[in-house]
Amino acid sequence: MTEIISSNINSVVLIGSGNVAWHLGHAFVQNRIVVKQVISRTEKNAVALAKDIGSDFSDKFDQIDNSADLYVISVSDHAIEEVIRTIKLHEKLFVHTSGSIAMSVFSGYFKNFGVFYPFQTFTKNKPLNYRDIPIYIEGNSPENKNKLMHLASCLSDNVKEINSEDRALLHLAAVFANNFTNHMVTLANSILQKMNIDFSVLQPLLKETISKLDSLGPENAQTGPAVRNDRNIIEKHLKMLEDMPQMRDIYSIVSESIKECHKKD
Amino acid sequence: MTEIISSNINSVVLIGSGNVAWHLGHAFVQNRIVVKQVISRTEKNAVALAKDIGSDFSDKFDQIDNSADLYVISVSDHAIEEVIRTIKLHEKLFVHTSGSIAMSVFSGYFKNFGVFYPFQTFTKNKPLNYRDIPIYIEGNSPENKNKLMHLASCLSDNVKEINSEDRALLHLAAVFANNFTNHMVTLANSILQKMNIDFSVLQPLLKETISKLDSLGPENAQTGPAVRNDRNIIEKHLKMLEDMPQMRDIYSIVSESIKECHKKD
Repeated sequence: MTEIISSNINSVVLIGSGNVAWHLGHAFVQNRIVVKQVISRTEKNAVALAKDIGSDFSDKFDQIDNSADLYVISVSDHAIEEVIRTIKLHEKLFVHTSGSIAMSVFSGYFKNFGVFYPFQTFTKNKPLNYRDIPIYIEGNSPENKNKLMHLASCLSDNVKEINSEDRALLHLAAVFANNFTNHMVTLANSILQKMNIDFSVLQPLLKETISKLDSLGPENAQTGPAVRNDRNIIEKHLKMLEDMPQMRDIYSIVSESIKECHKKD
Repeated sequence: MTEIISSNINSVVLIGSGNVAWHLGHAFVQNRIVVKQVISRTEKNAVALAKDIGSDFSDKFDQIDNSADLYVISVSDHAIEEVIRTIKLHEKLFVHTSGSIAMSVFSGYFKNFGVFYPFQTFTKNKPLNYRDIPIYIEGNSPENKNKLMHLASCLSDNVKEINSEDRALLHLAAVFANNFTNHMVTLANSILQKMNIDFSVLQPLLKETISKLDSLGPENAQTGPAVRNDRNIIEKHLKMLEDMPQMRDIYSIVSESIKECHKKD
């Protein structure tokens, strides 16, 4: 253990300049981890990020700084493999930050690797409290895993180990909890827009929706016509959605699923 | 106008003792509107509510107090008509608090009526800031509408007039924004439960989801594989949901809808 702690990660090269890279770069620097270089083909974003966090910048992978303790690949899922194939630093420690890509993507390319998955939705220039954000770690050896968990615990109070299969399930849960909830609100807003009612009328309801989830949990917080099995209202709503077949189908299938989930109650 | 303001609503009889009645009763009393009586067939809830807000209680509709300025029917949608048929106070001002039931439900039974619709999800014993909650008013005459708007403005800073048709659309929007978002979180939680991961790991993500809605609006806040049209990840997720056909169908139809909505971008 002493040996592991003495080999802490003190410096990083950040590959990518999207939302996750932006946030990780700032979180590293705030916690005294040096970001030696930001490397990205999207020059505009990367230059701004590098300037912001006092790093060098390059848009050429063959100019990658070879002196960092860790290389963080934070690019779109479909671009990860290409980045891995391009970089020739076989002895170095590499991670990606994706929920859905297995750690095995690194196999055969690098000796030391892992995954550093922050469980949050990131928006550039929108600060977050990193200490609350769960960070899930995987490593290809106990040493690499411990190094990454130690680094993560500099950023967050909620660091956990997870394998690639469970991480993919976590990401799927996040798609429902974030992407799909957001789309339900988009659909709600499309109804309001028809009446020229501003989105802001939904905000007290949305705040209370989340507050109830905190205090009651999602099963107990469920209200509405589907959980009451109020067929009159459900029929009325389906009729109101007659001209919007996709929304009507969503209404129908989600209402059925709510009924299913609460059958046992 | 002077005449209308001088005929303010100072006292109320509350019919019902569910979540909405509980909250309205407390909000009235906090704003010096006397709740003369709580009347409900569900004795246990109603007695507790009446005691809480210093009202009389009865479980018999023929013992209804006939001296109040307003009678608020806050029962399940399917029970409203029966309550209306039962009560014989034809001269008095009546409202219901439902999103989906048209004001015309009162026609032929009473001379003075309207709707008092607070746009919020209510949970007993969970206090709310009423001043933020939009209250939507309808009245069968300008006088009744003005009386109700004046009463609503004692409770909330956000009082608006709406007709029955638009109120039903508002309620439909609330089903998407509250009931369906909550169910998406229930489904996310069902994935976590399989891995014995506690619901609390979702809370930072859910808080940020709502915070992004506030700052960006739902269209701009959309992220995830569907809006990126990342077919690899979508296929992976559908495969992971193979044993849960209903969740897989929801995943599929919601992803399609996200793609549709963002096609124009």
